[in-house]
Amino acid sequence: MAHAINFQDKLRLFSEQWSPKIIAQVNDYHVKLVKIHGDFVWHSHPETDELFMVLEGSMDIAFRDGSVTLRSGELYVVPKGVEHKPFAAEPCSILLLEPAGTINTGDAGSDRTAPADAWI
Amino acid sequence: MAHAINFQDKLRLFSEQWSPKIIAQVNDYHVKLVKIHGDFVWHSHPETDELFMVLEGSMDIAFRDGSVTLRSGELYVVPKGVEHKPFAAEPCSILLLEPAGTINTGDAGSDRTAPADAWI
Repeated sequence: MAHAINFQDKLRLFSEQWSPKIIAQVNDYHVKLVKIHGDFVWHSHPETDELFMVLEGSMDIAFRDGSVTLRSGELYVVPKGVEHKPFAAEPCSILLLEPAGTINTGDAGSDRTAPADAWI
Repeated sequence: MAHAINFQDKLRLFSEQWSPKIIAQVNDYHVKLVKIHGDFVWHSHPETDELFMVLEGSMDIAFRDGSVTLRSGELYVVPKGVEHKPFAAEPCSILLLEPAGTINTGDAGSDRTAPADAWI
């Protein structure tokens, strides 16, 4: 019997911040859920675009020359190579789509780097 | 100034059923919105997985050996090569993710085939 993947069910399974959890695979791309709050690090992904979609709350993505605000029911694609810094003033749940193996901190590293292979 | 892509704003721009509208690109993948109601045709995509996410309403995807029901806030990935037939008892709005150029009717053709390059 096939079952849909329910975002709320999956979000209840973890509380960690800034630690993407894979919920589905489409060819060689991963769909991930992430809980975020506060500031992330500046980074870019030199090899890939990255899709952000807000499920609950709102977030901002800062760029070197501006920013974008995303609310529930909105998405934004950060082009490959573009430096960005995610930020959420309040707790926010988001969905990411990117190639399998994409590292959350991109080219920046740091102690915010999370495993890229955590399924939930 | 960067702007988020808002699903409701995009859905207000068209009324056609079963005619995917591209709203974003992630590398060589397209994110599409589709309004559906009633039965689609049996088909498969021999070359790619296909992600379905329900934004409003609910839908079923029939397989030769079962089916899956998707409600708002749920997704399902139909594996490549698997025959499926989408169905919505009531009007439903969904998001699709698949490689650019993927045809809605896959290997089946028919008069339900829609353009694969319609941005909105």
